[in-house]
Amino acid sequence: MIDHTHDPAAKSWVPGADAHADFPVQNLPLGVFSPAGEGPRIGTAIGNYCLDLTGLAPMLPLAVREALTLPVLNPLFALPGDARLALRHALFALLTDEAHQSAVEPHLYLADACTLHLPFHIGDYTDFYVGIHHATNIGSLFRPDNPLLPNYKHVPIGYHGRVSSVRLSGTPLVRPKGQIKGPNDPAPRYAPTQRLDFELEMGVWIAGRNALGETQPIAQAWNRIGGLCLLNDWSARDVQAWEYQPLGPFLAKNFLTSVSPWVVTAEALAPFRVAQPARPEGDPEPLAYLDDPVDRQSGALAIALEVRLASRAMREAGQEGMLLSKGQATSMYWTLAQMVTHHASNGCNLAPGDLLGTGTISGPASGSEGSLMEITRNGKQPVALPTGERRAFLEDGDAITLIARAERQGFRSIGFGSCTGVVEPAL
Amino acid sequence: MIDHTHDPAAKSWVPGADAHADFPVQNLPLGVFSPAGEGPRIGTAIGNYCLDLTGLAPMLPLAVREALTLPVLNPLFALPGDARLALRHALFALLTDEAHQSAVEPHLYLADACTLHLPFHIGDYTDFYVGIHHATNIGSLFRPDNPLLPNYKHVPIGYHGRVSSVRLSGTPLVRPKGQIKGPNDPAPRYAPTQRLDFELEMGVWIAGRNALGETQPIAQAWNRIGGLCLLNDWSARDVQAWEYQPLGPFLAKNFLTSVSPWVVTAEALAPFRVAQPARPEGDPEPLAYLDDPVDRQSGALAIALEVRLASRAMREAGQEGMLLSKGQATSMYWTLAQMVTHHASNGCNLAPGDLLGTGTISGPASGSEGSLMEITRNGKQPVALPTGERRAFLEDGDAITLIARAERQGFRSIGFGSCTGVVEPAL
Repeated sequence: MIDHTHDPAAKSWVPGADAHADFPVQNLPLGVFSPAGEGPRIGTAIGNYCLDLTGLAPMLPLAVREALTLPVLNPLFALPGDARLALRHALFALLTDEAHQSAVEPHLYLADACTLHLPFHIGDYTDFYVGIHHATNIGSLFRPDNPLLPNYKHVPIGYHGRVSSVRLSGTPLVRPKGQIKGPNDPAPRYAPTQRLDFELEMGVWIAGRNALGETQPIAQAWNRIGGLCLLNDWSARDVQAWEYQPLGPFLAKNFLTSVSPWVVTAEALAPFRVAQPARPEGDPEPLAYLDDPVDRQSGALAIALEVRLASRAMREAGQEGMLLSKGQATSMYWTLAQMVTHHASNGCNLAPGDLLGTGTISGPASGSEGSLMEITRNGKQPVALPTGERRAFLEDGDAITLIARAERQGFRSIGFGSCTGVVEPAL
Repeated sequence: MIDHTHDPAAKSWVPGADAHADFPVQNLPLGVFSPAGEGPRIGTAIGNYCLDLTGLAPMLPLAVREALTLPVLNPLFALPGDARLALRHALFALLTDEAHQSAVEPHLYLADACTLHLPFHIGDYTDFYVGIHHATNIGSLFRPDNPLLPNYKHVPIGYHGRVSSVRLSGTPLVRPKGQIKGPNDPAPRYAPTQRLDFELEMGVWIAGRNALGETQPIAQAWNRIGGLCLLNDWSARDVQAWEYQPLGPFLAKNFLTSVSPWVVTAEALAPFRVAQPARPEGDPEPLAYLDDPVDRQSGALAIALEVRLASRAMREAGQEGMLLSKGQATSMYWTLAQMVTHHASNGCNLAPGDLLGTGTISGPASGSEGSLMEITRNGKQPVALPTGERRAFLEDGDAITLIARAERQGFRSIGFGSCTGVVEPAL
């Protein structure tokens, strides 16, 4: 799977691309953007530029040309993975060989002057719960006597989320209202949430299709991973605590889900596939339908994750976001392939552009928690900001930024851009 | 709201329409159908015929004509309710006044020769849980010590479902596989479900739109009810029991959800709006955002419901489906308006063609339960079929048919057609 497009020495003729933290020529993520004053189209990010693939289509492989005509990635991810690999190779050649510079340059737009769009028409959104340290941390707050339920190490737990409120990074988060009832309140009230939180997740964009009634054998499940993004599963913890039994989270999470705009493809992530961490001694083996030797050897991803918080006062003082958390995507108990195979194990049909969330990714150690609820121990140990402010949960004006970077020795690291949102007051 | 289109004495010139149990001229449900050998289009059902509204558009109000061009109801239900009321009045006039017969007749097709289609492009599907007797019955099986949780009488509990597996009535149900672990099994196994069940629900098709961040005040929430259908929330009880904690049902319910093809409109249901049954003494009052005097007086619906089961042996012997359950839609603890207002109470955006399930509607008495799990007391008291067969849960070859009819003294009753499915063996 590792080919010359992953050569860390490869250079692009696009100014600044080789030095760009996220989008060197080894990345070539896919997305949808509009140049200033123009309509949306499919593109890739190269350094500080967006490259118009719809305009560039005549120079790209025949197999993908038709899929580049509409400003949405679904048709491209309905194609076999070979087509996207051919696209990657073609883009790599066009952007590394100076012979192509004069033909390609007219299709480059400075990213700062472009507007990015949601890359897919999303059919369904499913949120998993594969961050075992998060499940343990948060379970111990909701159910102190019973943090990790007996099914957790057998079933990749997931639930359906809301598609209509999935939005691109940068969409403001209006503080939601909801039913809230503290443990000692005699009755609930309808009020703005007081326990607004983020959740650090990766989003998985599905490629290909299984028909209703068809399962997805795990040996081929990686072919169903189109690419990844960052995902913030904003959560209202007080609403969640009151509503979530017995059917799971609902209004506590469907007011906004933010995703980063660029799809870092499975092809770009190939060098960063690493062995699944060994299950702790005594943990059950996965059932056969979830077990695959290749997935064991290469089902995890070497992706470093960060969360930063910048209050309004911090931003007004020109301060950078404060690091809230730093973790690793290898903290997931189940692989992406296991998530896909389990999802389709009852014949549930997954389609190109379906979105899976991994669930919150927390590490085992303090400093690697993927939500404020964990970081502040349910608000009891607020975080001190550089301004002297304190945060138990998010306050109006707070900006949360998620960052991810695939990193592995011997390879050029590639990034996901960022996924941000600023909290606005309740209406 | 009650106008001459609800006159029980009104007659249509369409042969047999007046005698048709479901689709007399007082109903005029909306749907999408294809005449034999032709493409799909919007239609209404009148007696044993489908009437092509796309073809009839030049005779219909200007306000709806553009919305009739595509073979999907979303644009029509994006319009204000006035437009659909005008459409109803126009159709009523065309189908009752013989002066229009020669112009309209060419657009009539015998229903038996037509293919029906899913009426909407569904953006999101949410399943509620407003059948309080079901919640109590099933809660007592999953949690004997704690059947109805403390939030139930304050919060219209709901959760997100899967859109991709919503299918039209008649789609076969392939018995799904899943992780199953009995209470005494040492470990789970992956196997075909042994506890396949139906759930009798009404489906609600959303009309109109609230933007992300906007709520839907309850005084206007009825305007968001586009129409209703029957919905079967097929469930694998063994999978559900093992997977549902802590995030709710997932693979136990997303292998197929069946809906009936015709949308019985809010306008057609106007005469069947009845007072919400009084809450039992001691129950909490709804919070202000869920409380509206008009909704109290007219928020419930006088709809009679039935479930019939026909095993393969019964069908081969030419026997009708056996009545499994007979209930009333008034057994819902929350109204449709309360469901919509609660769903949008955190700013969650609902769009035309979104689907809400009510949750299983069971009555308080034996014989009115909306699922086999309730009828057979979790399989312990199997039902005897006329063939001598017994059913604890559904077996391969079983056909389940849901039926509903709006009935009220002084009005012509109207029906929903049916929602059926036959169980096929696991692959």
